[in-house]
Amino acid sequence: MNFPVIEPFDAALTASLRARVDGLAKPPGALGRLEDLAVRLGAIQNRIDPRIRRVRACVVAGDHGLNAQGVSAYPSAVTQAMVATMLAGRASVNALARACDVEVCIVDAGVDADLAPHPRLRNEKIRRGTRDATIEAALTDDEVARALAAGIKLAGEESDIDALMLGEMGIGNSATAALLLHRLAPAALNDCIGAGAGHDAAGMARKIAALERAAARSNVTAPLDVLREFGGLEIILLAGIVLGGAASRRVILVDGFIASVAALAAIRLVPAAREYCIFAHASAERGHRILLDVLQTQPLLDLGLRLGEGTGAVLAAPLLRAAVNLFSDVATLDDVLSGRLG
Amino acid sequence: MNFPVIEPFDAALTASLRARVDGLAKPPGALGRLEDLAVRLGAIQNRIDPRIRRVRACVVAGDHGLNAQGVSAYPSAVTQAMVATMLAGRASVNALARACDVEVCIVDAGVDADLAPHPRLRNEKIRRGTRDATIEAALTDDEVARALAAGIKLAGEESDIDALMLGEMGIGNSATAALLLHRLAPAALNDCIGAGAGHDAAGMARKIAALERAAARSNVTAPLDVLREFGGLEIILLAGIVLGGAASRRVILVDGFIASVAALAAIRLVPAAREYCIFAHASAERGHRILLDVLQTQPLLDLGLRLGEGTGAVLAAPLLRAAVNLFSDVATLDDVLSGRLG
Repeated sequence: MNFPVIEPFDAALTASLRARVDGLAKPPGALGRLEDLAVRLGAIQNRIDPRIRRVRACVVAGDHGLNAQGVSAYPSAVTQAMVATMLAGRASVNALARACDVEVCIVDAGVDADLAPHPRLRNEKIRRGTRDATIEAALTDDEVARALAAGIKLAGEESDIDALMLGEMGIGNSATAALLLHRLAPAALNDCIGAGAGHDAAGMARKIAALERAAARSNVTAPLDVLREFGGLEIILLAGIVLGGAASRRVILVDGFIASVAALAAIRLVPAAREYCIFAHASAERGHRILLDVLQTQPLLDLGLRLGEGTGAVLAAPLLRAAVNLFSDVATLDDVLSGRLG
Repeated sequence: MNFPVIEPFDAALTASLRARVDGLAKPPGALGRLEDLAVRLGAIQNRIDPRIRRVRACVVAGDHGLNAQGVSAYPSAVTQAMVATMLAGRASVNALARACDVEVCIVDAGVDADLAPHPRLRNEKIRRGTRDATIEAALTDDEVARALAAGIKLAGEESDIDALMLGEMGIGNSATAALLLHRLAPAALNDCIGAGAGHDAAGMARKIAALERAAARSNVTAPLDVLREFGGLEIILLAGIVLGGAASRRVILVDGFIASVAALAAIRLVPAAREYCIFAHASAERGHRILLDVLQTQPLLDLGLRLGEGTGAVLAAPLLRAAVNLFSDVATLDDVLSGRLG
């Protein structure tokens, strides 16, 4: 399939943005990573005066056939229940989004249930859950392409949304994400497997055994092949959001482990997407460290979150607004020295 | 002098708050330190339903006599210039406060200039700068008491302010803070001295030599004596804000190195103040790590800031709102399992 064109940053503009930050009324570098973030936002938006108007968290939901193998401590029906909770505005992501002035958009990419229409639910369902990747390919090539296309389209809409956040809900998706990370990083499968939403020793053993069976079934490494063999629909749609968002020069704020794997998939498909992805928080889930090291990036926050739903990304939204305000609101050193503060 | 009474936390309430967090619709512990923060806010406010209504950053300014010894790369006149920048709404703290919905209150505790009245400036000036602590005591006992009292009074006003942030502006105050940390931690003086707003090797050598002279002049260790010998007025007024804020059960959100030294001074005066202090960010200034270790605490953010002005505390304000929203906005697991989401 054809992917949208993602432009590299303009080096001259980046230098100008850095010079603006360096000229502000403060000791050089004294705002640390917030200064780097300000420069990055300008480079992403291709503007000397970056701005953060609307901020949208895209929480994409899907189910996973391999959950039949007991890779999660929870049944797949919980995905539907948590989607209903989000639609009612009563999930963790809703609570955090209200505190951080973020819009929440819930997307059904592949929940294993027929969801009733709801004004806050976007129906992009490709199929009711993926197939069981321990037995067969989770998806067809066409299903992968359609999920990617849905994400690309969604991310290109509404030009006053300046930042898109990647969130997800899908019981079993830390198992699927481990398989994707294993092939796309690449990294040893065992290092990619964590406790997800929680597991006792027997649960972890079951998860590891199931993922070893799935990995043994296919040795693919090309990104589209890996997505077809292992899924999942919410992860693939999120990868599409990265590609569409980067192509329309939006800031992509990536949540934890599963959202980061979606970003990695997008970057493996179109490497230029990488500079548009800002990693919001360091997940407590095991494989996240590997992924961050592979992409040579450091997240903004480290609060021990391991929930998903986009919660970590939402908490970082105020940092985006603070960073752009440096350009719009702070006096230059020249202003201060000359007393021109009116 | 008499300090206000600071109550310890109610253990039964804390247990109830923890039980409420554990009953929310998410895997246990999945929101990491945000869950701990939510419990802490309830314990501080002594409420099962903590709330964050108004949030105020108190940016307290003062000058330091020992700056005559070249302990900073900047002249003391910059303190006045930056106060003017803050009053004009064009300093970094103003820009960040707009992004994070925080009120900024500028307090003159001891700027070495006669500042014109301004609607956003609170005049609590004890004297124009401290005396040079390398030569004589920076303050008198009475000046220390008056600065503490001004902070205590300020922090007790306006009961709908639920969180007070400690910020500061004062050229030379990382030098003063190093002396205070050295005596109050206690810790070796050399380990407490950092580059502050920036120094070359000669500047650092000058700063270290001056602080060694000041330390050699007096061997006091009792908190009020240490504050009298070394100052500074903005740090002491901030310590008063901690005491007054904790006594009126406000959340105290502490900025970087200098604000943390103010919190340490308050805690040494009234140990019960410690539980009311939430450390917002890990400063890049050298001594901060020592202080955080002494108080056995971990800050919420780590973004490499070393500016002061309350900037790091302001950036953490949305985390307070997010934490209390967990109690008010998130469904319980029982709600979700029974479908009661209306």
